[in-house]
Amino acid sequence: MHAAINDVKITSGLLGRVSKLVKEQVLPYQWDILNDVAKDAVPDHSIENFSVAEGNDEGYPSHCIANFKIAAGREKGDFYGMVFQDSDLAKWLEAVAYRLMSDPDEELEKIVDDTVDLIGEAQQEDGYLNTYFTIKEPENRFTNLCECHELYCAGHMMEAAVAYYRATGKDKLLKIMCRMADLIDQNFGPEENKRHGYPGHEEIELALVKMYEATNEERYLKLAKYFIDERGKKPYYFDIEFEKRNHASHFSYLYPPYGMYSNGPKYEQYHLPIREQKSFEGHAVRCMYMASGAVDVARLTKDEGLMDTCRTLYQNMVQRRMYVTGGIGSTPKAEMFTSDYDLPNDMVYGETCASVGMMFFTKRLLEAEQKGDYADTMERALYNTCLAGMSLDGKSFFYVNPLEVDPIISKENPDRAHVLPVRPAWFGCACCPPNLSRMITSLAEYIYTIKENQIYVNLYVPDQAIIHLENKTIELETVTDYPYEGLIKFNLKTAGEYEICLRIPAWSSNKWSIMVNGEKVQTEVKDGFAHLKRAWNTGDTILLELDFEPKRVYANPKVSKDVGKVAIQCGPLVYCLEEVDNGKGLQRIYLPKDSELQLERRTDKLLGINEIHTKGYRLKELEDETVLYASDTNWEYEPVDLTYIPYYAWANRGENEMTVWVHEKA
Amino acid sequence: MHAAINDVKITSGLLGRVSKLVKEQVLPYQWDILNDVAKDAVPDHSIENFSVAEGNDEGYPSHCIANFKIAAGREKGDFYGMVFQDSDLAKWLEAVAYRLMSDPDEELEKIVDDTVDLIGEAQQEDGYLNTYFTIKEPENRFTNLCECHELYCAGHMMEAAVAYYRATGKDKLLKIMCRMADLIDQNFGPEENKRHGYPGHEEIELALVKMYEATNEERYLKLAKYFIDERGKKPYYFDIEFEKRNHASHFSYLYPPYGMYSNGPKYEQYHLPIREQKSFEGHAVRCMYMASGAVDVARLTKDEGLMDTCRTLYQNMVQRRMYVTGGIGSTPKAEMFTSDYDLPNDMVYGETCASVGMMFFTKRLLEAEQKGDYADTMERALYNTCLAGMSLDGKSFFYVNPLEVDPIISKENPDRAHVLPVRPAWFGCACCPPNLSRMITSLAEYIYTIKENQIYVNLYVPDQAIIHLENKTIELETVTDYPYEGLIKFNLKTAGEYEICLRIPAWSSNKWSIMVNGEKVQTEVKDGFAHLKRAWNTGDTILLELDFEPKRVYANPKVSKDVGKVAIQCGPLVYCLEEVDNGKGLQRIYLPKDSELQLERRTDKLLGINEIHTKGYRLKELEDETVLYASDTNWEYEPVDLTYIPYYAWANRGENEMTVWVHEKA
Repeated sequence: MHAAINDVKITSGLLGRVSKLVKEQVLPYQWDILNDVAKDAVPDHSIENFSVAEGNDEGYPSHCIANFKIAAGREKGDFYGMVFQDSDLAKWLEAVAYRLMSDPDEELEKIVDDTVDLIGEAQQEDGYLNTYFTIKEPENRFTNLCECHELYCAGHMMEAAVAYYRATGKDKLLKIMCRMADLIDQNFGPEENKRHGYPGHEEIELALVKMYEATNEERYLKLAKYFIDERGKKPYYFDIEFEKRNHASHFSYLYPPYGMYSNGPKYEQYHLPIREQKSFEGHAVRCMYMASGAVDVARLTKDEGLMDTCRTLYQNMVQRRMYVTGGIGSTPKAEMFTSDYDLPNDMVYGETCASVGMMFFTKRLLEAEQKGDYADTMERALYNTCLAGMSLDGKSFFYVNPLEVDPIISKENPDRAHVLPVRPAWFGCACCPPNLSRMITSLAEYIYTIKENQIYVNLYVPDQAIIHLENKTIELETVTDYPYEGLIKFNLKTAGEYEICLRIPAWSSNKWSIMVNGEKVQTEVKDGFAHLKRAWNTGDTILLELDFEPKRVYANPKVSKDVGKVAIQCGPLVYCLEEVDNGKGLQRIYLPKDSELQLERRTDKLLGINEIHTKGYRLKELEDETVLYASDTNWEYEPVDLTYIPYYAWANRGENEMTVWVHEKA
Repeated sequence: MHAAINDVKITSGLLGRVSKLVKEQVLPYQWDILNDVAKDAVPDHSIENFSVAEGNDEGYPSHCIANFKIAAGREKGDFYGMVFQDSDLAKWLEAVAYRLMSDPDEELEKIVDDTVDLIGEAQQEDGYLNTYFTIKEPENRFTNLCECHELYCAGHMMEAAVAYYRATGKDKLLKIMCRMADLIDQNFGPEENKRHGYPGHEEIELALVKMYEATNEERYLKLAKYFIDERGKKPYYFDIEFEKRNHASHFSYLYPPYGMYSNGPKYEQYHLPIREQKSFEGHAVRCMYMASGAVDVARLTKDEGLMDTCRTLYQNMVQRRMYVTGGIGSTPKAEMFTSDYDLPNDMVYGETCASVGMMFFTKRLLEAEQKGDYADTMERALYNTCLAGMSLDGKSFFYVNPLEVDPIISKENPDRAHVLPVRPAWFGCACCPPNLSRMITSLAEYIYTIKENQIYVNLYVPDQAIIHLENKTIELETVTDYPYEGLIKFNLKTAGEYEICLRIPAWSSNKWSIMVNGEKVQTEVKDGFAHLKRAWNTGDTILLELDFEPKRVYANPKVSKDVGKVAIQCGPLVYCLEEVDNGKGLQRIYLPKDSELQLERRTDKLLGINEIHTKGYRLKELEDETVLYASDTNWEYEPVDLTYIPYYAWANRGENEMTVWVHEKA
């Protein structure tokens, strides 16, 4: 089990700042957007050919609350937005619920209560809840699971319901969602009179597990398991429903002639039964949600075969299909995984939501089995792609997280139009911003995994925590400026015999030390965790020191786009070069193999970062501008001082070039 | 003026073989396809996500002749194919006409005559000729110039008409096309009662110039000039016609909501008046056709301003926007130019037609002014991208000509789906194969430019030529195995005072020699040509020796995708590595700066090539397959023997990896 949000107060540091920003700025801003009252939320149309994949139709605004009001009969009007527009509100509600756990706020709670009333009114007599179908196609409920996100939206609202119930004890939304879950349960299942389907976009599986854990209703777990088991069986359910609805397609404007359905079984992970899948295929976010639900079901039903599948999928991803920034998805087309080692830095998708999904997946894996590698991956996704998804001021968001950007090419080459050089304020398809919010507001859940009398520390965050062990509740304080220093001090405030398991990240596995009360201790590292078990006294301290030397990172040679290139990492942070610090022509920069990397603390820059300074070379522009190809190379290199900044902080100083991977000079 | 096709017999060598192949195999094969009787012309669907940009809809076959029969009232049925399907026949007829110039053939001529009869029957009372509009939308003639290729198809048929008239003296098709040209002239022009439009796809401009040269009808030249001058004036004609037809779009299935029109003014080069354009923008083929027509008009009207525009556009292209293979177009989206130095090797379009168009453009530039650089570019396009457009057996064709291919990525990554690893047999949008045919059958026109008493030799081809100088006709024989050797021998068969100007290619500018009758001569090189002027005797010989050492080629450092990489060229041929010769993992290969490049003649391989052998290294695969990123690099290099083949010969031995650019090891 993870520690509860209200038991862990993140006190300061980078994550403290980001959490505060989301709670105080981003959530109110997003509420305004959901209500169409945000003034500065005009989408950025600087790139004209903005990919349709982002759904950035001109038809801003959000209209999300308005849809609920129309469905509730409070207002007249038509549905507007994506077919999954409801989920924007659900994610926001869930994020607010987490915020209320750590920072109760009467005014905000009142807003939620009013919104729950609205949701209740939008619910149909039989429990059905989905504003799109209620307003637009009431006769077509559950006829297009492949494309229409009904179960997905239901899942998100279930997550919100459970979170709000846990935050406040109020069960109105939970009851609303129990009625919807019951309706879904009446409609789907192995029985002959039910539909033998599963969601096109996974999400409800993990949500039903949360509903089960909140209500103890076994049917919900059983239904989650059913969706996991049914997926990919032949004949394909999506073929059957496609025939039944006479080939009607919701997304045919995006993917003619048959909409999403035409992307093929891999897109929605129904190409094979889940247990036969060996690699994540198709839409990356869906993969993460599917796998998260699968781990939950495997853990609760003690299904070792399913767990093994999850391990296989995880390993294929982190060993072959993940960017160094923790981004996943190598193409904007269907936002999907492609093939092993195909990781183009300029064409990458690397959706923020997908990396948030990786955190969901790895958190669940850590609950199932305590392996440091899972937390390494979680941390990679969190500190790099996830944090890069939001600007430092919390007012703009990336959907796509590239590792190489040239603003001119993004403007002039439509293949790169999805690679924005600055964060837009909002998206027509607004999945990422509220997803980021609910992850950040629940960050406390990711820090500790509790297993009987063991405390596994997955992430090092300055916090004050109350941990409920099997037979004891203890208090623990973490003091650190991580990820900007490698020193982490734990102040133990409760005496007793229990085990503290500190993650030794792979990047620090060759160099780390632990001192207890000032004395160095030798400890065994097992599956990436150093285990400290003893009878602790109040006031004991543990000092963990990790390797905070900046490091060069190289990709597996099979990653063809990274051959001959080097990236820089320090602690969990991947670094990048930006034009504003290093001038134009980042793709002409060479970093010598032996050039010293110097860390400098810059509290004044980008809200406080560690910069890395080093010396490199830049292949000079030619004096003769008429030469495009030549054999007599008088190409010259000029020495340049290079300044690296953490990847998450890029694109906060205007439109400019950026790169993570740099040529290495032997 | 260029030498005429019937005056130049290409006797042997690479181009001789290709010419023979096109005449004897490809033209009959294409005739079968136009008539829907080809048996092995089933399109290759091995790549499922084959880009719609290629128009490879499932609806093969061609139906081209059938469309004419239906329009002529000979058969019942509906139009099928692209809106520009007529041009496939036109290009084929033009190619056949060129073939008949060098190799008369009664049977083939009969086929053409019959086809001309058919075309005549398909022509409408008032001279209108276009099977799409005649069959499908007779009421909508000339209402959608932006998208519907009416003037383009007319232009191609005019080229065929002129070619057939020149080949046989028969003027029936010429008269048909005069009537169509007259109709167009009645409909378009500066007068108030005419439409102030211009074609969406340029072509008719250069065709009208050919019509003018064949008929001396000044109106045709005037109309060509009108189309050139009108293009890009504001308010945009395409906006006006778009409003007039109530926003109807022909290609909305490809580019919703407004079809090609929505690609914006640059796509069809109407963003600015041509004279104000400084770089080629938009669809690469259109750019080449536009510029070809502009050079013609500039030459005939002595319009130095327009000629200057053509020079500027040419220079921008060859100095910033052209692949080393002579390919142009950096993206499959709209098959277009993007921005300076944006030349991705894997995402490239490099359409065969665009490089054929470069040959049209450079041939015209050479007729306007004799600068070797134009011929260098022509030769680069011809021997690399154009020849690569067709398989060695003449049975399959590339539309897209990549510089880097990984078949697995082409299959699994939809961004790369346009990059086919093997040539398909035919395309739904079949512009490239017949375009290649007409260029190859008219190759003789590209070899010599004649200017008063000067013979400019642009290309070195084994041939026997009759050259009509201002006051004299001379005979000339060229003996060479170029491009597989650098020795070119000219046997002069006619005495007299005239000037022979031999191109010294840029790649040979530092090392070349000329001997006349066995004695070395010193000659001036002016604008890339060595001038030999004297009173020649019958039996004189000139021996030109060019630099045939294989050479390393480097790109301008601003071409970010080629930084740190090297290509190999020998003579005009760019070389590449293929997996079948070099094993998997071509992107892990390093070529040392000083590794010797050894040329080997291989008459037995790929119908006869020069291979290049050298020694390099390959970054080895890791033994530990679980590593994706690591700091402790035990990355190893293994020595490998490398075998390069000419780029044009790639993809003739099954599906495999290929690359032109290779990492350089310092």
